[in-house]
Amino acid sequence: MNCSPDIREQISVCNWLKPRGKLRGSPIRDVVLTSGEIDNVGGLLSLRENEPYSIFGSAEVLDLLEANQVYDILDRRLVSLQATASGEAAMLGSGITVELFPVPGKVPLYLEREAPTTGTASEFTVGARVAAGHKSFFYIPGCAAIDDDLAARIRGAKLVFFDGTLWTDDEMIVSGTGSKTGRRMGHIPVSGSDGSLNILSRLGIGRLIFIHVNNTNPMLIDGSPERRDVEAANAEVAYDGMEITL
Amino acid sequence: MNCSPDIREQISVCNWLKPRGKLRGSPIRDVVLTSGEIDNVGGLLSLRENEPYSIFGSAEVLDLLEANQVYDILDRRLVSLQATASGEAAMLGSGITVELFPVPGKVPLYLEREAPTTGTASEFTVGARVAAGHKSFFYIPGCAAIDDDLAARIRGAKLVFFDGTLWTDDEMIVSGTGSKTGRRMGHIPVSGSDGSLNILSRLGIGRLIFIHVNNTNPMLIDGSPERRDVEAANAEVAYDGMEITL
Repeated sequence: MNCSPDIREQISVCNWLKPRGKLRGSPIRDVVLTSGEIDNVGGLLSLRENEPYSIFGSAEVLDLLEANQVYDILDRRLVSLQATASGEAAMLGSGITVELFPVPGKVPLYLEREAPTTGTASEFTVGARVAAGHKSFFYIPGCAAIDDDLAARIRGAKLVFFDGTLWTDDEMIVSGTGSKTGRRMGHIPVSGSDGSLNILSRLGIGRLIFIHVNNTNPMLIDGSPERRDVEAANAEVAYDGMEITL
Repeated sequence: MNCSPDIREQISVCNWLKPRGKLRGSPIRDVVLTSGEIDNVGGLLSLRENEPYSIFGSAEVLDLLEANQVYDILDRRLVSLQATASGEAAMLGSGITVELFPVPGKVPLYLEREAPTTGTASEFTVGARVAAGHKSFFYIPGCAAIDDDLAARIRGAKLVFFDGTLWTDDEMIVSGTGSKTGRRMGHIPVSGSDGSLNILSRLGIGRLIFIHVNNTNPMLIDGSPERRDVEAANAEVAYDGMEITL
């Protein structure tokens, strides 16, 4: 996601755009983890080259980093792990606040012993409310169900980024790319009467943008019937280079 | 490294070139680890999508994978960890044999508690002798010193790929890119009377090719004095797309 110029100075993710003017260095100052799945925490192993930054996440997720010795590669004199309790607003270095909240999900795949519970909220899967000044948005890349708590939280929000992994629950199975349903993987499907598009489109959200979209999801295809369904519900599918003004 | 046609069918690494003809899939069938450093084992977290393959390494290195729960992401029904004792030739799926042997190195950075010993050989850092039929080569991407055992092992070899991380031991410090010497990081420098180029060029090696070259190393620059020193010693610096016929 790129940011429009008017909030460029405020949004941490935009620090990606600004090298620090050293021989080596990363412009990343803050990392926010929304789960402990490998696609969330794996990249931290590449952020190990003596640059200072902070990692925000739930205690449950940060404990996973502490429990895995490979993450000792992150020099704790430079990289601080900041556990963020549900309902607390954490102040990022750039003046942005982030509030994390549990959403229905599951433990990371590498902790699964048998079929895990996926329908109830836990601190292993969280959404984020990101705010700067009087503007804010929600970022929820993994979510197995939209329960009453979540619906109440995001009702009337100006901007919500939401888990758009699969169009239908059995999409991976039908397409021959996997053996699990979306919900089993911790992702509510977009389509259907109990899908996210139908539920979210009744919450008075200003802009609803699907992210974390799997490459089997037909709503990725411009002009497809599924994309038209998304657009008919006044929702959007994120794309590389997308710019958003709040 | 690409392989020339005459050994293309035999060399496992070339399986990279052959997709398996499925919707999703990796052509990688075997992974050989020469250390437990993150730049060796970090990428395994990306090889987690239900494809069968084997991982070969010393017991010390494979134990690190077992000790870090994030590596449970590798489904052991599909991914087999095959400990390879020093001096044993492990048979890869493609008919290639790999023999691992300890070289002077150190424990992975994330296991370091204080300044580690780097001058003596241990199973945490190994070189590999890769053979198919009557042809073979050595692959030694990390090495802190060339001791008598190592010199005896590779003397007269037709082809040796060797650790070319730094030109001088204090290169990271002088260039402002790091605070450690090369030897402290487990890498003998290329230059100097006690450097790898001088030592290796007296061992009757057919082709000596430097790999694992840091971007501060001036021998990377075509035509530089340092590159000319390498070429004068009849050695080479590896490059992307290099093809080698044995």
